[in-house]
Amino acid sequence: MKNRLKEKWKAGEPTYGAWLSLAAPMVAEAAAAAGFDYVCIDMQHGTADYESALAMLAAMRGADSTPIVRVPWLEPGIIGRVLDAGALGVVIPMVNSRAEAEAAVAACRYAPAGARSFGPVRAGMAWGADYFATANDEIACIPMIETRHAVEHVDDILSVPGIDAAYVGPADLSITYGLPPGVDNPGTVFDEAIETIVASCNRHGVTPGIHSISSLAAKRVGNGFRMITVSSDLQALSGGMRNDVKVANEGGGTASSGKIY
Amino acid sequence: MKNRLKEKWKAGEPTYGAWLSLAAPMVAEAAAAAGFDYVCIDMQHGTADYESALAMLAAMRGADSTPIVRVPWLEPGIIGRVLDAGALGVVIPMVNSRAEAEAAVAACRYAPAGARSFGPVRAGMAWGADYFATANDEIACIPMIETRHAVEHVDDILSVPGIDAAYVGPADLSITYGLPPGVDNPGTVFDEAIETIVASCNRHGVTPGIHSISSLAAKRVGNGFRMITVSSDLQALSGGMRNDVKVANEGGGTASSGKIY
Amino acid sequence: MKNRLKEKWKAGEPTYGAWLSLAAPMVAEAAAAAGFDYVCIDMQHGTADYESALAMLAAMRGADSTPIVRVPWLEPGIIGRVLDAGALGVVIPMVNSRAEAEAAVAACRYAPAGARSFGPVRAGMAWGADYFATANDEIACIPMIETRHAVEHVDDILSVPGIDAAYVGPADLSITYGLPPGVDNPGTVFDEAIETIVASCNRHGVTPGIHSISSLAAKRVGNGFRMITVSSDLQALSGGMRNDVKVANEGGGTASSGKIY
Amino acid sequence: MKNRLKEKWKAGEPTYGAWLSLAAPMVAEAAAAAGFDYVCIDMQHGTADYESALAMLAAMRGADSTPIVRVPWLEPGIIGRVLDAGALGVVIPMVNSRAEAEAAVAACRYAPAGARSFGPVRAGMAWGADYFATANDEIACIPMIETRHAVEHVDDILSVPGIDAAYVGPADLSITYGLPPGVDNPGTVFDEAIETIVASCNRHGVTPGIHSISSLAAKRVGNGFRMITVSSDLQALSGGMRNDVKVANEGGGTASSGKIY
Amino acid sequence: MKNRLKEKWKAGEPTYGAWLSLAAPMVAEAAAAAGFDYVCIDMQHGTADYESALAMLAAMRGADSTPIVRVPWLEPGIIGRVLDAGALGVVIPMVNSRAEAEAAVAACRYAPAGARSFGPVRAGMAWGADYFATANDEIACIPMIETRHAVEHVDDILSVPGIDAAYVGPADLSITYGLPPGVDNPGTVFDEAIETIVASCNRHGVTPGIHSISSLAAKRVGNGFRMITVSSDLQALSGGMRNDVKVANEGGGTASSGKIY
Amino acid sequence: MKNRLKEKWKAGEPTYGAWLSLAAPMVAEAAAAAGFDYVCIDMQHGTADYESALAMLAAMRGADSTPIVRVPWLEPGIIGRVLDAGALGVVIPMVNSRAEAEAAVAACRYAPAGARSFGPVRAGMAWGADYFATANDEIACIPMIETRHAVEHVDDILSVPGIDAAYVGPADLSITYGLPPGVDNPGTVFDEAIETIVASCNRHGVTPGIHSISSLAAKRVGNGFRMITVSSDLQALSGGMRNDVKVANEGGGTASSGKIY
Repeated sequence: MKNRLKEKWKAGEPTYGAWLSLAAPMVAEAAAAAGFDYVCIDMQHGTADYESALAMLAAMRGADSTPIVRVPWLEPGIIGRVLDAGALGVVIPMVNSRAEAEAAVAACRYAPAGARSFGPVRAGMAWGADYFATANDEIACIPMIETRHAVEHVDDILSVPGIDAAYVGPADLSITYGLPPGVDNPGTVFDEAIETIVASCNRHGVTPGIHSISSLAAKRVGNGFRMITVSSDLQALSGGMRNDVKVANEGGGTASSGKIY
Repeated sequence: MKNRLKEKWKAGEPTYGAWLSLAAPMVAEAAAAAGFDYVCIDMQHGTADYESALAMLAAMRGADSTPIVRVPWLEPGIIGRVLDAGALGVVIPMVNSRAEAEAAVAACRYAPAGARSFGPVRAGMAWGADYFATANDEIACIPMIETRHAVEHVDDILSVPGIDAAYVGPADLSITYGLPPGVDNPGTVFDEAIETIVASCNRHGVTPGIHSISSLAAKRVGNGFRMITVSSDLQALSGGMRNDVKVANEGGGTASSGKIY
Repeated sequence: MKNRLKEKWKAGEPTYGAWLSLAAPMVAEAAAAAGFDYVCIDMQHGTADYESALAMLAAMRGADSTPIVRVPWLEPGIIGRVLDAGALGVVIPMVNSRAEAEAAVAACRYAPAGARSFGPVRAGMAWGADYFATANDEIACIPMIETRHAVEHVDDILSVPGIDAAYVGPADLSITYGLPPGVDNPGTVFDEAIETIVASCNRHGVTPGIHSISSLAAKRVGNGFRMITVSSDLQALSGGMRNDVKVANEGGGTASSGKIY
Repeated sequence: MKNRLKEKWKAGEPTYGAWLSLAAPMVAEAAAAAGFDYVCIDMQHGTADYESALAMLAAMRGADSTPIVRVPWLEPGIIGRVLDAGALGVVIPMVNSRAEAEAAVAACRYAPAGARSFGPVRAGMAWGADYFATANDEIACIPMIETRHAVEHVDDILSVPGIDAAYVGPADLSITYGLPPGVDNPGTVFDEAIETIVASCNRHGVTPGIHSISSLAAKRVGNGFRMITVSSDLQALSGGMRNDVKVANEGGGTASSGKIY
Repeated sequence: MKNRLKEKWKAGEPTYGAWLSLAAPMVAEAAAAAGFDYVCIDMQHGTADYESALAMLAAMRGADSTPIVRVPWLEPGIIGRVLDAGALGVVIPMVNSRAEAEAAVAACRYAPAGARSFGPVRAGMAWGADYFATANDEIACIPMIETRHAVEHVDDILSVPGIDAAYVGPADLSITYGLPPGVDNPGTVFDEAIETIVASCNRHGVTPGIHSISSLAAKRVGNGFRMITVSSDLQALSGGMRNDVKVANEGGGTASSGKIY
Repeated sequence: MKNRLKEKWKAGEPTYGAWLSLAAPMVAEAAAAAGFDYVCIDMQHGTADYESALAMLAAMRGADSTPIVRVPWLEPGIIGRVLDAGALGVVIPMVNSRAEAEAAVAACRYAPAGARSFGPVRAGMAWGADYFATANDEIACIPMIETRHAVEHVDDILSVPGIDAAYVGPADLSITYGLPPGVDNPGTVFDEAIETIVASCNRHGVTPGIHSISSLAAKRVGNGFRMITVSSDLQALSGGMRNDVKVANEGGGTASSGKIY
């Protein structure tokens, strides 16, 4: 088993990803066909229960994109379940301390590196006979750094062995600094916060990641990020539909639904 | 109960709609909030089973958009079920003869106008106490005219009492004329075919409708259509995601996922 | 965004609610149309998984009843998810200490009042552009006081800032006093326990609430409660069906299924 | 395999049933425990897709009530599927002619009595090794007589061999006579229509059945019916909830949700 | 798009398949990994609704096995839907006449070869840009020959252009000859019936197929069949479990669940 | 309510069970009919969400096998939910300390023995009026002993009052000793570890249990185990299918799918 996303991270290349809030296998298939380095099923702010996530991971079988999952919370039960379902990475919200970072790693790794329970019900079938032998190396453990408290303790957190990437949630990060939730808050303490995070990542061999939008991708690469989410299923759908209403009413412009099949 | 879509048709106004292939209540809610005159759950080429369609119709409760459904085929069981679920219009594929048009109308209307069975399990709850009294008037019966054979018998079909609109499927229409499937085939016999359909609609007091895309909306209004589908959930999603990959990779352009929430 | 339930509580009015154990959007729609001040989807002793709860919340869109959810346990992942899905209140089981009450509040509030993560996937769409600005004020945080231990520490618990109502689970409360589980245990220590809870609520500006049945509503208002659950989907269904069997067999009485649509 | 419902019919006893519009296994379990002779999953005006119906039939395993299903329409595919799922009877809407009655019987019986396809995926497991040997005798074929046209041809229809019961849909029957849809229309031609149906049933050895409510059960027994549906899940639920609102607001009356578990 | 199953048929090679009665994506994945030439999702006697079948087809993406579906009945709506979902073959029950065979072909082919409606919602995404151009050639239309009547008219049926294979249902075939349902009835008229079918297949360039079990595969190859179903999910599961009970109780034998992951 | 599994344990008899990874009611029905003493729905490494588990438990109603559930993790919310759904036993992963064992017991027992919340939504209906009175005695609390750390503290863990059985996960146990994951590791420290566990069980009146396969059942009985899982749905299915491919290709052997219905 090889995780192409981790290979790119090791090579220092920027990687772009999609975020899925909808609970439909066909959406996962469409995202996996669109050219992203990773596709993340969001079980925190998105809508999939476990059975849907499982079907979505199955629908991404054979895709070039690496399938990952954001779990609802730092809880070993669900982390184990999504890995058993075949996720090659887990994004874990609200990791605010060294102890939480250690718990995150433990949930992602088999002993002796961690305490993950063995039973890769779909992963063993999907990723092959060397699943157990390679899982600890190939699976990406990705805690989120998304509070002021976490920024203030970022070296404590990111120096925990076994962390592959740190993922910034810009909305939550902003809120904890008293800023409005959003994808960016340029010219504020937000800039320093992400600079602090990237620098700590670089000190600890951790890939810096951030939730973003495609038009900010170049800026984020410039900030030093190498894991950048640039698209969202529900926002693309809603934004495209609103644009189609506008184009139809105004009698001009570019259709978002540009063909019928 | 009042069907705003039929009111606009009676006023001769153009109406724009969205087409849903995904089976998710939240997609229906997003579409209903985007400003369309109608939102159509597609059970023919889309993916919803009945229970999903029911949940999607519930999620559109109170929306300004009129909820309609395309059934898989001209079959009275499913037509009755989607009406009972609260659809205010039914798009019926492949109506190719007067007999089929009569069957379509019969499935949509209570006696004596038709043969619909009574039992509006959700519709009675959603649309109020006058549901039975107003259903035959307010519900839109929308057969599809989408084959060469249907065009050649269009007056036979559209003169059947009880048809509210005729909906052109441009891909199927094209195929039956030996043209490639697509949203338009300008400069071919396709032009004459839709002209024939619109003219027949006008003769029989039927609203002409067509499956399309937003950038063709003005042209279709010019062709005389008054029910024009201009957007699709899955195409907006896929197209937007592909655009986001491009914008990220090229370092410029407009994001399709333009905010994160 | 305005939460009518909280407005009534602020005005000191009694409010009545329904409890849903079934996982069906149409049940939520039926309950929301029945005239309750609130409708609670029970994810603890009821049967809905998250995707069903989401569809049920969507089906209550536009209803006068305030939609709330009881989560399975005091766990920030699921509390955040049901709020993101559009619940305007969260009932949290088994809050037995000040620390647990603080955790309950933290899970319901954005920083700086709490630690809720931002991402209102359906709530932002359903409740409008001011969702973030108003969420901390409008969303009801409702811990359950349902053990002898909690009664003995009730002031410690209810003095935590951010609690809107305290909800008594009479069955669990009874069990922890050695009484049989039930909706009431008059003439026992149960009476004093609920008196103690109501008094503490009044001291701390918290609305007293209790799980009950309609025939006890007046008594509970007399006890000082202002949030009183008076109906349950599954009990109404089962009780009504058993009554219908009796009426049919005995040849007299009032039908529970009093019309067919 | 023995079908208790058919045994009671053979003994000339009245039988009472419940009608299920909701798609939840636990509702089926609750109905099956309430004391009905039969419980019918309604796939026409109710909400279950096939997978839900299958789970509901499984949840009725071992119950004293005979599980039956109303299919959406006279279509052999779905009739076969619900029988394979373990239904012991099929209610078939809108049988208006001898040819339709013959098609209904053919769909319910293995050759040579009919043309049902063999493959009792759950029925063989649930009903035992003699399933094939006993199915044609034990399964109830129940066409609906619910239009004026059907009444006028009732002997043609009911003389078809293999019909076990005829089920009157009073709402549809009423509509086709120009009466309002409802459970009864006393003092009108409705009385004569049901009298005609019962008489024809008696001539042809067919059990007369009707959709009704519990307070009309005695009257329907007096009319000669022996299969009488007296309860509905959704109506019991909605009616009970509305009653609970009333009892709570008025401070008196009998609770519909009379215990909490 | 290439259909490997049809390539093998053209080369005259025997092909072996699996039959799926369960509605789970992971079962489809497991079957597709087991080495069959085709995997058939059975929507007639199996349990999947359309949404499950869609998820199962997605889970077979990239597999070497050709995914096909048996539809519940000869009905163009569901045939079109499973093809749009990505099935590369359709098994159609109970084709008993030339007219039915023509209808079967029409439902599987785009004009001018047939009347399939265009809209390959998942198939276009899964099978690539040449889907429309290659679909009529690559998709397998597989009517079932499974009644005495069909055997007696087999040349009429199989001479219809566009049929790729004829699939024998041995249980139904047996029943219509007055034999017990089963996978084989050697030494009876069953032998002649299948001989007649194979001979007709050979006259008309149609691949002969049959539902069977693995231990009969060699015999069926000897009979001339080239499409032989040799395994079933539910039977393998049930049989394996019963064997495991026996092995455990008897203290010896070969485990059916031979490893834990 | 009586739990037959616990009765056998009290009598010192060995009991054999099946493990379910698939989320389908019919699989549960098939397993319950196969002759096992218990059938366990695995929500940790298996695929069922709560609603599926509920439907599966309903499908086992009336079976001789005792239905139990393995929860994803030691978390009181889900333990309470599966018990409310009607499970008569709960297998709880990764219990590594006395405190965790106490938490496991507390989640399974009503006060004063524990802290389970009252609300047996399906259990009260399925198991009868004495459910509350008998639940603490009849429900089996089954922590897993599956790490080296747990073995080293096994007496601390198993001396906690209220534990009915200890269940060994051989794969996890092996990993924590540096051995490959598997059902057995004979001739290694694994032998001593399970000996230690069985001995501690015997000291504390706890039934020793282990995950296994049928061909090892006799050995495990010899080791002193009395709760032995000997079969798995997905392994039986996959193994049987692979065997059927082999039998078909080799032209000989025993079919795993040995009949078609």
